[in-house]
Amino acid sequence: MARIWSTELPAHAGESVQLSGWLHRFRQLSLVSFLILRDGRGLAQVVIEDAALIEKLAVLPAESVLRVEGEAVAVLQAPGGIEVRGARVEGVSEAEAPPFDLHRPTIKALLPTVLDHAAVALRHPRRRALQRVMAASAEGYRAALRAQGFVEVFTPKIVGSATESGANVFALDYFGRPAYLAQSPQLYKQMMVGVFERVFEAGPVFRAEPSDTPRHLSEYVSLDFEMGFVRDHTEVMDTLTEVLREMVRAVQAQAADAVELPRLELPEVPAVIPSIHFSEAQRLLAAELGEDGVVGEPDLAPAHERWLGEWARREHGSEFLFVTGYPSAKRPFYTAPEPGRPEYTNSFDLLFRGLELVTGGQRLHRHRDYVAALEARGMDPEPFEGYLEAFKHGMPPHGGCALGLERWVARLAGVANVRETTLFPRDVQRLTP
Amino acid sequence: MARIWSTELPAHAGESVQLSGWLHRFRQLSLVSFLILRDGRGLAQVVIEDAALIEKLAVLPAESVLRVEGEAVAVLQAPGGIEVRGARVEGVSEAEAPPFDLHRPTIKALLPTVLDHAAVALRHPRRRALQRVMAASAEGYRAALRAQGFVEVFTPKIVGSATESGANVFALDYFGRPAYLAQSPQLYKQMMVGVFERVFEAGPVFRAEPSDTPRHLSEYVSLDFEMGFVRDHTEVMDTLTEVLREMVRAVQAQAADAVELPRLELPEVPAVIPSIHFSEAQRLLAAELGEDGVVGEPDLAPAHERWLGEWARREHGSEFLFVTGYPSAKRPFYTAPEPGRPEYTNSFDLLFRGLELVTGGQRLHRHRDYVAALEARGMDPEPFEGYLEAFKHGMPPHGGCALGLERWVARLAGVANVRETTLFPRDVQRLTP
Repeated sequence: MARIWSTELPAHAGESVQLSGWLHRFRQLSLVSFLILRDGRGLAQVVIEDAALIEKLAVLPAESVLRVEGEAVAVLQAPGGIEVRGARVEGVSEAEAPPFDLHRPTIKALLPTVLDHAAVALRHPRRRALQRVMAASAEGYRAALRAQGFVEVFTPKIVGSATESGANVFALDYFGRPAYLAQSPQLYKQMMVGVFERVFEAGPVFRAEPSDTPRHLSEYVSLDFEMGFVRDHTEVMDTLTEVLREMVRAVQAQAADAVELPRLELPEVPAVIPSIHFSEAQRLLAAELGEDGVVGEPDLAPAHERWLGEWARREHGSEFLFVTGYPSAKRPFYTAPEPGRPEYTNSFDLLFRGLELVTGGQRLHRHRDYVAALEARGMDPEPFEGYLEAFKHGMPPHGGCALGLERWVARLAGVANVRETTLFPRDVQRLTP
Repeated sequence: MARIWSTELPAHAGESVQLSGWLHRFRQLSLVSFLILRDGRGLAQVVIEDAALIEKLAVLPAESVLRVEGEAVAVLQAPGGIEVRGARVEGVSEAEAPPFDLHRPTIKALLPTVLDHAAVALRHPRRRALQRVMAASAEGYRAALRAQGFVEVFTPKIVGSATESGANVFALDYFGRPAYLAQSPQLYKQMMVGVFERVFEAGPVFRAEPSDTPRHLSEYVSLDFEMGFVRDHTEVMDTLTEVLREMVRAVQAQAADAVELPRLELPEVPAVIPSIHFSEAQRLLAAELGEDGVVGEPDLAPAHERWLGEWARREHGSEFLFVTGYPSAKRPFYTAPEPGRPEYTNSFDLLFRGLELVTGGQRLHRHRDYVAALEARGMDPEPFEGYLEAFKHGMPPHGGCALGLERWVARLAGVANVRETTLFPRDVQRLTP
C-alpha cells in the first residue's frame, strides 16, 4: 500500500490507508485514545482502541517516527472531518521527547531557547507554517518578475572590496588576501541591466550589524530586482506594486495552512499604493509631533515610520505607503538626484504596517555622473573599476529595489522579532545551530 | 508610442514601432547601411538610408544606448524576416567602444581578459544566452520539486564550525569570533527533513578550493534537495531523473535563443538512467584500462569517469550514468552504509557526458549511528550538536543530492571551462569584478 499525506486523507474516506510521520501527541481519554500523527504537511487523528497498543503509545516519547495503517473514516467531529480507525502502528525511528511540547498552540519557552533547539522547534506547526509563507513569498516574487521578462541572476557573495558603504561588512581570508561578504547584489544587478535590462535575484546578503534589535539580522534573504529604460523611480514602484500583489496571491495559494494561523493577516495591495514625498512627510510629522527631531533630519525615525503607517491607513485605507525623495545625504552614491531639487533623490522606501520593508530608487547611469558622485563623497573609484566599466560602455536609465524576505514574513505574521520567521537566524550573539 | 522588444517585432509588421537598446553593430555598405540594435532579448535590424544619419552612426562607438522609431517591415531576407525602415535614431546614453567586438560569433580575447571585462563581455549574445540557460535550469529544478511537494528553504551561509570535512573552508571574522562559509546546505537540509520531509534550496556554496582547474570554482550555485521516508538512495535517483527531465524542458521553453547556439546540445533524459555499482565499474575499468590505479582505489579518476561515460553512451545509449555504492572511505560520515556490505555505501554520483554532475545518497537517520560514525572517524561531536539534535528527536530514513548549476550549464554548452558559464567567477586567482 502506498503511503499518503495526512492532507490527502479526506479524499480516501472509506479506504485502507498508510500514513507516516511523527508522534505529535498521544491523548489518552477514558473511552478512547487519539494518536495525533504529524507528517510534512499536516496532522492526522488516529483512533486507538487496542489496550496493548494504548499501553505502548502511552510511554512512547513524542517525535517518535511511526508508520500507521488503518481505515480512513469520515467523522463529522474529527479535525478535518476524517480520522483513521483500526490502526496498526509500527515504529520507524525512536526519539527522545523534545525539550518543549510541540502540540501546544505556541512553544512555551523563551525565544533564545527556541532558537537553540531550532531543529525541533521548527517542527511546531506554527513555526513551520511561517517557513511555507517564506517559500511561497519567494516564489510569488520570482513568478511576478519572470512574467514581466526579468531574468534570474546569481551574483557573487564573496567580493573584493568593502564597497557601497564600507561599514558593517564581514571580512574573510581569501587564499591569503582580504575579501568581504556582499552586503547586497546592488552593483552586480546594475551591471546586469546592461545585459538583460531586467534582472532579479533572491539570495543571501550579509551585514555585520552590531546592533541587537528585533529587526536586524547579520544574514538574511534579499529579494532584489533592477530594470532598465525606466522613466524614473516611479516605474520601479509600479513594478514593485504588481510584485507584492503576486506575493500575496502566492501565499494564499501555496501556504493555505499558514493563512489560517492566528495573527497572520494578509494585506490588500491597492491598485496604486499611496505615495508621499519626504519633504511633505516631514511637514506632516512636524505639524503632528513637533519640529524637534524632524525638521532638518535627513531620514525618518522608526516612530515617524509608524506614524506615517497609521496616517496612510487612516487617510488612504492602505497598509502600504511609499515615501519618495529621500535626501541625498542619506542615500548611496549611485542614487539619481531629483530633477531640479538635487538635495532630494529619485528614491523611495516602502513602509508596510509602519515599518520600512523595501528600499529602492533610480540610479545614476552616466559614467561621468559616477565619477563626480564618488569624488563628491571623497570615495576612491579604484575598487569600483569593474562596476564603473558597465557605465563607461553605455547604460540606460534604470532603477530597482530590495525587499527583506524575513521582515516581510514577520510583518505578515504579526511577530515583532524577525528571528521568529528566520530558519536559523544569525545575529551579533548567535551563530548556531 | 510604447517601446517594444526586438523579439516582438515580427508581430508588429506594418506598424510604427519604438525600440531601445545598444548599438551592437553598424554595417555601412555601398547601397544601404544597417544599424543592428541589441536589446535585453535579441537583435533588430534597422535600415539607415539618410546620409546625415549614416555619417553620425558611422562614428558612434559600439554600445551607445539608442532609441529608434520607424516602420516594421516584413522582408524575407532580413534576420527573423523583419526590419525597421525610415528610422529616426536618438541617443540615450553615450559609450566608449568596448575592449573587444561583441558582434562577432565569439569574443576574440583570452578568457582572463573576457572575465576582467565581465560587465561588457556578458552582453555578448552567446555569453548571455548561457545565463538564460542557467536561469531556466534553476527554475525547472524548482518547478519539478515544488510539483512533488518539496518546500524551498533558505539556510544560513555563515556557520559556526568548519563542519563536514574541515578542509577547504573559508574563515571569517564574526564579531570577533571565528566563523566559516558553508560548503553546502547538507546539515541544514537534513534537519529540515524533520520539518517538511521534502526540501530544496538553490543557493551559493563556498569551497576554498586551492586547485586552479577548469572545473572548480570557490563559489558556485548548488541545487540541493533532500527527502524523507525513502526506501534507499534509489528513490533519490528516481526523483533526480524526473528533475533533470524538467530542467531540460525548462531550457527548451524559457531559453529558446540559447537552444539555437552552436555547440549547445540538450540531452535526452532516459525514462530510467542506467546505473552501475562502483565495484562493477571497477571491474570494467580494470579489464579495459588495466588494474593499475583502479583496483583498491576508493574513488574514480576523471579519466575513469570519461571512460564510463563513453561506455554508457555505447552500451545504453545514455549520456547519463549513475555510479552507485561508492566506498565508505571516500564518503562523508553521514552516508548510510550498503546493507550487508558496509565497505560500500548507499550513495551515488551521476555522470553526465563523462563528468561528475551530481553527488547524493541515503543518509544515516539514527542518533546512535551518528555518534558511532563520528567516533569511528575520530571526529568531535560537539560542533555538530545542533545538527545531531534532529536525530535525537526522531528522523525518518532520508536521502538527497546536490547538483552544481554552473557545471551543468557548461556541459550543456559544450564548454570545457566552467568559468565560461559563470556570471562573475571566483577562484584561487580571481576575486573581481
